[in-house]
This record gives sequence, C-alpha cells and structure tokens, in this order.
Amino acid sequence: MFLVLRDCHGLVQVIIPQDESAASVKKILCEAPLESVVRISGAVISRPPGQENPKMPTGEIEIKVKTAELLNSCKKLPFEIKDFVKKTEALRLQYRYLDLRSVQMQYNLRLRSQMVMKMREYLCNLHGFVDVETPTLFKRTPGGAREFLVPSREPGKFYSLPQSPQQFKQLLMVGGLDRYFQVARCYRDEGSRPDRQPEFTQIDIEMSFVDQTGIQSLIEGLLQYSWPSDRDPVVIPFPSMTFAEALATYGTDKPDTRFGMKIIDISDVFRNTKSEFLQDALRKPQGTVKAMCVREGAKYLKRKDIESIRKCATDHFNQEVLPVFLKANSNWNSPAAKFIVEEQRLELTRIMETREEDMVLLTAGEHKKACSLLGKLRLECAHLLEGRGVVLRDPTCFSFLWVVDFPLFLPKEGNPRELESAHHPFTAPHPSDGHLLYTAPEKVRSQHYDLVLNGNEIGGGSIRIHDAELQGYILSTLLKEDATLLSHLLQALDYGAPPHGGIALGLDRLMCLVTGAPSIRDVIAFPKSFQGRDLMSNVPDSVPSEELKPYHIQVSWPTDSEAEKRKESFTPSRKLRVLSSVLHQC
Amino acid sequence: MFLVLRDCHGLVQVIIPQDESAASVKKILCEAPLESVVRISGAVISRPPGQENPKMPTGEIEIKVKTAELLNSCKKLPFEIKDFVKKTEALRLQYRYLDLRSVQMQYNLRLRSQMVMKMREYLCNLHGFVDVETPTLFKRTPGGAREFLVPSREPGKFYSLPQSPQQFKQLLMVGGLDRYFQVARCYRDEGSRPDRQPEFTQIDIEMSFVDQTGIQSLIEGLLQYSWPSDRDPVVIPFPSMTFAEALATYGTDKPDTRFGMKIIDISDVFRNTKSEFLQDALRKPQGTVKAMCVREGAKYLKRKDIESIRKCATDHFNQEVLPVFLKANSNWNSPAAKFIVEEQRLELTRIMETREEDMVLLTAGEHKKACSLLGKLRLECAHLLEGRGVVLRDPTCFSFLWVVDFPLFLPKEGNPRELESAHHPFTAPHPSDGHLLYTAPEKVRSQHYDLVLNGNEIGGGSIRIHDAELQGYILSTLLKEDATLLSHLLQALDYGAPPHGGIALGLDRLMCLVTGAPSIRDVIAFPKSFQGRDLMSNVPDSVPSEELKPYHIQVSWPTDSEAEKRKESFTPSRKLRVLSSVLHQC
Repeated sequence: MFLVLRDCHGLVQVIIPQDESAASVKKILCEAPLESVVRISGAVISRPPGQENPKMPTGEIEIKVKTAELLNSCKKLPFEIKDFVKKTEALRLQYRYLDLRSVQMQYNLRLRSQMVMKMREYLCNLHGFVDVETPTLFKRTPGGAREFLVPSREPGKFYSLPQSPQQFKQLLMVGGLDRYFQVARCYRDEGSRPDRQPEFTQIDIEMSFVDQTGIQSLIEGLLQYSWPSDRDPVVIPFPSMTFAEALATYGTDKPDTRFGMKIIDISDVFRNTKSEFLQDALRKPQGTVKAMCVREGAKYLKRKDIESIRKCATDHFNQEVLPVFLKANSNWNSPAAKFIVEEQRLELTRIMETREEDMVLLTAGEHKKACSLLGKLRLECAHLLEGRGVVLRDPTCFSFLWVVDFPLFLPKEGNPRELESAHHPFTAPHPSDGHLLYTAPEKVRSQHYDLVLNGNEIGGGSIRIHDAELQGYILSTLLKEDATLLSHLLQALDYGAPPHGGIALGLDRLMCLVTGAPSIRDVIAFPKSFQGRDLMSNVPDSVPSEELKPYHIQVSWPTDSEAEKRKESFTPSRKLRVLSSVLHQC
Repeated sequence: MFLVLRDCHGLVQVIIPQDESAASVKKILCEAPLESVVRISGAVISRPPGQENPKMPTGEIEIKVKTAELLNSCKKLPFEIKDFVKKTEALRLQYRYLDLRSVQMQYNLRLRSQMVMKMREYLCNLHGFVDVETPTLFKRTPGGAREFLVPSREPGKFYSLPQSPQQFKQLLMVGGLDRYFQVARCYRDEGSRPDRQPEFTQIDIEMSFVDQTGIQSLIEGLLQYSWPSDRDPVVIPFPSMTFAEALATYGTDKPDTRFGMKIIDISDVFRNTKSEFLQDALRKPQGTVKAMCVREGAKYLKRKDIESIRKCATDHFNQEVLPVFLKANSNWNSPAAKFIVEEQRLELTRIMETREEDMVLLTAGEHKKACSLLGKLRLECAHLLEGRGVVLRDPTCFSFLWVVDFPLFLPKEGNPRELESAHHPFTAPHPSDGHLLYTAPEKVRSQHYDLVLNGNEIGGGSIRIHDAELQGYILSTLLKEDATLLSHLLQALDYGAPPHGGIALGLDRLMCLVTGAPSIRDVIAFPKSFQGRDLMSNVPDSVPSEELKPYHIQVSWPTDSEAEKRKESFTPSRKLRVLSSVLHQC
C-alpha cells in the first residue's frame, strides 16, 4: 500500500507497512480524503530494484511511514488538482486557492517572484537605483484614460487611483532622487476588456541625466540579468526600428519579428498601369500599392481561409485585398491577374522573391491603412499556417525589438484638426524636430521608445520635457488641456529639474510571455475576470447605504433603459487605444 | 572664484579660472541662480596646501572647470535647501520635490530602499519565500475598521481598498504557496489622525507548518540581517513578555524597555490599612494599590510638572495619583503621608528600593486602570526628566520586545456583554485555552504576538485558525459577525488548509525609528498631511459630475448643520483603537 505526498517542493511516495503495529497509521492515511494535510515521519529507503521512477526527482526513494497525523481534512473537491484535468476558467477563478496548487500556477508565481528579485538586484545593488514607493491615492490626470475614483470624507472631494506613477517619478527627479525604480501597482478602469486587469503591475524606472540609449542599454542589461537560467540567454543589444519602418514593413508598431513575411511597397511596379483601380489608388494622397508574400500559402491555405482573410479586410478596414496564388504551372491564379501584365509579373516575382506554392496578398490604398491591413493579415496568415502544421514561430525564441521615433502627436479623434499626445504630454520632442513644434507640430517625432517582444508591447518610455515653458506650451497651446490640474508639475520643472527620462515594463504581460501562459490571469495570484470581478469572493459588492454616508455619496440607480444603453455603448476611447498601442488591431 | 556643486553622491568644490579664456564659463556659472542644474567638465586637482576641508569627503580636491552648460535654471526658491533652515511642515509638503533634496530626506529614502532590499534578500534568497502580489480592489471585511470604497461601473457595487492582505495570505497558504511575503500597500481610512497615513506599507509574511517560535525567530533573523551596518548590531533572540506582565509592569502592551521605572503592586503593604480610601479601593473587584518610583524625581521634577501629571490622571483616567517626595531628611513629603504608617513606609522603601531624592507615584483602583494610568505617567515622567537633562533613554539603543499571550476577545464597546476580537477573527486560540472557548471565551488567550521596539508597536501577527468549523463558530456564535462576507475563506479552510501563521511589520514606523525621524512623514516620499491631503497637488479634489456618472454615484452635499456636527463627532471607533494598540494611550 502506498500513497503520494505533495508539498511545495514536489512529490514523494510513502509506503504503509502492512504489519499490525502500523494499523493506526494505516487507518489515518487510508481514511484521509484526497488533498488532506497530513504530517508523517518515517525512514527514507531505496525503492526495491526495478520499481524506481526515473521521471520523478524522488523516484529512487520512498518513505516507510512510522507515524502519521491528519492536520486538516479536505472535503469533496470541485475539480481534481491535476494539470491535465480541464476545467473552465470561471471554476478555476471561483476556487482560486485550489487552482493555485497546480504545478503550472506554482511555477508561474514562483518564477515571477524570482525574476522580479533578480531585477531588483540589478537595479538596486548593481546600478544604484532607489526603490521609492509613491502614493496611489492621488489626483485625476487631465484627459487621461479612465481612472477609478475613491471618495474621501470631504464632501464632493475624491482621490483617483493613478494609472502609473508618471508624475511622481518626474517629481522624484526634481527632488534629486536621480535613479528611481518601483514595482508599481497601477490602476486603469477599462470596463470589460479581455486580457486586461483593473489593477496591474509595472517595473517603473526613471533616471536623471540620461538619453534614449542610456535607458535602452539599462533595460537590455536588466532583462539579460533577470532572464530565467533555463531559457536561451537574452542577446543584447536589441535591434531597433523606427515607427515609420515598423508600420511600412510590418503594418504595426509592435512587429512580431520572429518571422519574415514583410510588407513590400510595389507602387513603382504599377506607376504606368492601365488598371483604373490601381491608378485611382495611386493618385490619392499617400496612395500606394502594397503586397506581402505568404510562403507556401498557395499550398496550405484553403478557400475558407482566404474568405475569412478577405472578410477581415472589408469588415475592419473597409478595404479590398486580392490574393494571388502561385501555382506549379507558374500561372498566376488571381482575381488580380487581369490587370497584371507579364512585365509586371516578372518584376513582382523579382522584388518579392516569390516561389512556386506561395501566395501573395495585394492591396491598394492610403499608405497607413494599407500597411495596417497587411500587418493584421500577416498575423492572421501566420496563425492559419501554424494551424496547418507549418513551423513559423519557434516557441522557445524571444525576439526583442525597440521601436523608436514615434510621432509626438496624433490627430484628435472626433476633431482631427486638433492634436492629442500619441503617448502622454510629458514626452520630449525629438531633438531634430524641435523647430517644427511651432510650425508643423503634427510632423514632430518624439523621444518615445517602445520595447516589443514577440509582437507584444512589453514596455514603453521616453525622455521627458524638463523645461517648464515648453511643457506649458505643449499642454496649453498645442493640446488645449486644463493645465491647472498639473500646475504642481509645471511649477516643479521651474525649480531646476534635471534632464530625465524613464520607462515602464508591463510585468504581467512580460511574465505571461516568459512562462508561455495563455493569459495574464495565469501569472497573477488573484486576478479579476473579464468583467473586473473577483469570482471567488464576489467583488465588487453591494455596500449598505450607511457605509456610503461618511463619504457623502449615494448610488444613482440607472433606469432600465439606461442600463440597456450602457451595456451597448461602451467602447474604449481613442486615447485608451493609443496608450495601449492597439492602434492597428482589428 | 568658486562654487559648490551637488549631486546625489554629495558636494564638490568647483574653481572658476580668472583668465580671459574662461570668460564664457564664468558668465554661465555666475549667472545661474541657486539650485540650477549645470553640467561642467574640468580637471580634478588637489586643493592648495592648507585649504583642504577634512570635514568634507571631497575636501582634498577641487575641479578646475573647463566647460560649463546650464541645463536648467531655477527660479526663486520658497526656502533654502539647507537642513538647518527651519520651515513649516505645510511648506515642506507643498514643495515636497524641493524638500526631497535635503540631506535628511535623501538619507531616509535611500536607507529605506536599502533596508527593504536586504529584507527581500533574506526572505526570498535565503529562506525560500515567494513574493506574491495580492489585489487591492477587494471586498469589504465584516466589522473591520473603516475601509476606502471604490465605486465600480456596476450600479451600486463597490470595491474596498483592504487594510491588509490578511485574507489573501491565508488563501495562499491554502493554495500551497507555503512561504509568502509581500511589501504590501495597505489602506485605512482613519479620518484625521496625527502620524497616520491613509495608505501605508507593511512587510507582510505568512508561512505554513509553523508555530509562534518559528515566526519569531524568522523575524529576529530578518531584522538582524537587514539592520543598517552603521548601527549597533541587533542582538537576538529578543526578550519576550506576556501581555499580563507587560500591563502589570509597564501599564501598556508596548513597553519602552529602554528604562526601568516599573510599576509595583503594593496592595499587600496596605492589606491592614486603616485608611478608608485604600480599604475601599482594595475591596472592589481587582482592586489594587500600585506605585512607581521615579528616580531622582524629587530632585528634578517641579511643582508644575506634578500638577500636569495629576491633571493627566484625572482628565484621562478619572483617577487620583498621589506623589510622594523622598527628601534628604528622609521624611515623606506627600498628601499620602497621613495614611502611611512607619511600618508601611519601611516596607515600601524596601520593596521599591527608593533612595533619597526619588519620587514615588501612588494610586489605588482597579488593576488594569491603575496600571494603564501609571504606564502613561511613566512615559510622561521620562519625558519630563529628559527635559531636565537626565539621561534615561540612549538614542542609539534599540530595545526589541515580544509581547505574547494576548486575550483573544475583548468586551464589545457599547455592549460589554458581547465579545469582539482583540486583534482579528482569524487569530487562533492559545492551545492551553481551547476548552475555555465553549465555557468562558472571555478568558481565552490567543496565539497573537506583537513586536515592540522602544515602546512602539512595529509588528503583530498570529497563528491562524485553520479549522473551518472552529472559524465558523468564532465568527458566527461568539462574534455574531456576518459570516457570509467571509464565506470564501471559510470554504477554503475546508479544502485541506495547512496549519499556518504570519506577521506584518509596519515599515513606515520601523523606518521612522531606525532613522530617528520625528514623524513617519519623513520616511515617505509623498506623504499626506494630518487631514489626509496632498498639499503639493491639492488632493482630494473635486470631480466634474460627468465623471461620476459611469460609476452611478452622486455627491450628497451635507447641510450646514450636518457639516458642523461631522467636524465635532469624529472619534475613532473602539476597534480602531484596539487594532492600533493604543489601548492605554491618553
């Protein structure tokens, strides 16, 4: 008779002797329900020859039990604690304390702790950073994404839970804490969005007397130092790409550079085309013809794949995409074939290095739109090909990339003649573009940089404005924001603020990629569901109106029709989308 | 011509050459206002013989400047950045980013970062603890102290900002994360209380399969390991004292053991007294006569000191205290002298080891009340004596003490026939007292322990209840709490929860004692004022009613009379006071 005992270090096999003297031990252990907590003592012995289990770290030994004590019994489980047992996420979240016992969750949370510890060693012990805690009961930021409110005991006065310690980290630079970091809890109320959490964690860093390269090498060293030792080491420096290049080549500001399938501008091939459709497209401002070669696409992609690709293009981009199949007979099988003459076909074959069995996706339109479309389809095709067994992206490969030279401003949604910050209003303009601020601000590039890993934005930062006058000009004149909400920061810059810059890494997303977890909820001990609910404790919850009184608030219950409307109308604001770099997602 | 340059490492003297070639450098540096940011290059040279400054780490060298650049200019300061310049705290908080430049604030924040880093090394690297982040958007706890509310987008539903990760740390133990720690942000809405912050930080620890001694040695090792190397090393183990002993000897549950002046029970001396006053006191339940000898009190304390001591006793304890002055003529000069016969006087002299020039404080009454009174007066006298130049408490001395065996329950305020938890409802009863739970619960001691440093509670913890049935009995039957708010925790205990226990150290208070700062606001980068306000950014702040709409709340503006009443009526609840261990403070 044997049983398997588990603790946080792993499993061990326990043998119950069959003699009479062990009767009470046997009774205790046999009657203890699965997942009960027992304390045993006994002798560690070798397993009998032939019964060793080489797959188990403790597979060569077993424990011959002498005493046993039932410390706590376990009632009937809602699911078995085995990784191969499938359970719905709702059930896992409801019984999170049981789900945490799984090998995978134990691994994820322990690795997260270890990796953050290595980051702290790197920053604090090796690079002289100071870990400073900043408040989370703060002031709302002007024009920012939605912030949770916290009613105070002063009637009509509220704190806000900040989305990041942005203002505090800059104020620390003014205060002479020249190298700041914090593993910072941040809050963002985005309503119901998959794979987002109302509270999340970022590795938050700010330095004085630093430039873009300085921050970048620091982060490269940080990731290399803290990377799990059982993975391929991180190779530094990371490659870098401008925003313009990323958009033109990958159709996104967060390219997945683990595979090629780049977007190619083939406008020149069609300069003298007789096709009116293409001529029309090329005549428009920033009109282009773009293509992307999907290797072996003609071989692997099915009719329904192509249909879904074309549907995605029209649904989300209101744009046509034309597939071209390069069949063995070297004929181009395509609705586009009729307006591609032989000379153009040869030129395209040369530029795009197409081969038999490839598929080309072709589109015409405004540069950014055409790129975004192909960028989206690039990921879609990769996904489809992988579904057909083609190896495109090595799961053990970690492909880091810096994306730089973002625009400083974007046209404001709803009023495109006004500007809004592409990232946030404290980002410094690119030194070469400073003069354009007063003549053509929409052309100014910023000193913002994003860190991308395998097609996911895992960090972003910038060199900040340290000149109060310039900051005031951008806030009031260009962005037309209410600068009074930031008067303390503007004033601080006036008292000898050093040049400074920083970055924030999204820890949840990073851990999700490092562990290969399917969702960020798998690297967080007690995550909220899609709807921002804690399913274990039923949160958020009603509060007796007595408890609202000290905060001078009352609930405004929506009418039935309002409640219905509310459900339908929630779409994330433009700024939210920009901040989250989901610009090109559909 | 010279100037002094400051960076985060310290100061250095810069010499400006007087020759023509340095004219532009000279202009830049001479015109830069105080506290401006400059970048200089130059040669490091020895100071001329006789001009070295041995008090300055860089006092042997200076920099002969070659180039200079003004990176940012500083406008007129509201106060000079010099530690000796006195400024009001309101001004310091308003310009916190300037105040942070002071030597003292730089030291406090950097030491805090270093000490926390050492604690992390100890827990994470040396003792296998896992750093787990727990949510701060959570559920309100039943009957707890006041918690901030966070309105959600679901009408009438709220999150609460938890006062500690108590429930999560226990759930992690159920989840098999057997050694948890977190530098946890906690929230407590205590309205306006001096030296408290609405958000604060605790070193939060929980372990499975541990007893009280296990947690205590862990914490002793933790403090020894992380203690600043320029202080006297921490001596372990720390002494331990029961709650009953602490109350009887020091009149408080957080004795300052840096000095003696203990409370002595002199009831036996007066068993056969003829004084009716004393007889009355001794006849009452738990009636006692107590005394405390203030060394050299007769020499140093003035008439007005004694008056203030007696006033404190009557004002806050509604109790008489009688001073006895031991003058050189060995006569007892006291209002108590008339009822102390010679034999009693000799006995008292022997028990209390009184000497000439001492003062004895004498009181009679119920044990706890008499002790609390003398405990308060003990600190008062120490303060007064130190004000007269007597050295009682060595400022470099750190006197740690464990206080153990607290009562599990206290009589409920307002309804003393019911019980409430002395600490929190998850505290396990003392193993020797388990049987009393069902017969005389008010007599049950708990497995709670407090860590006291120099008379301040810097930590507290307990072995927890891991049995769902016992937890349910205590919550529902004994405490009559709404257990549905904790159903998830009760359920979790039923699924094989291991025996577990933990502790939390108050980091702000600890750093305050380590740095010798006068207030916890001096070890926090951006603290709130007494009233919970951020004076720099003017928080909490009004919010446009439009921004309240998504959260389905509106402000209930108080009428003028309500507003007036509110100001007067706020007194912290009994539970608050118990939780904060200010039981005996007046």
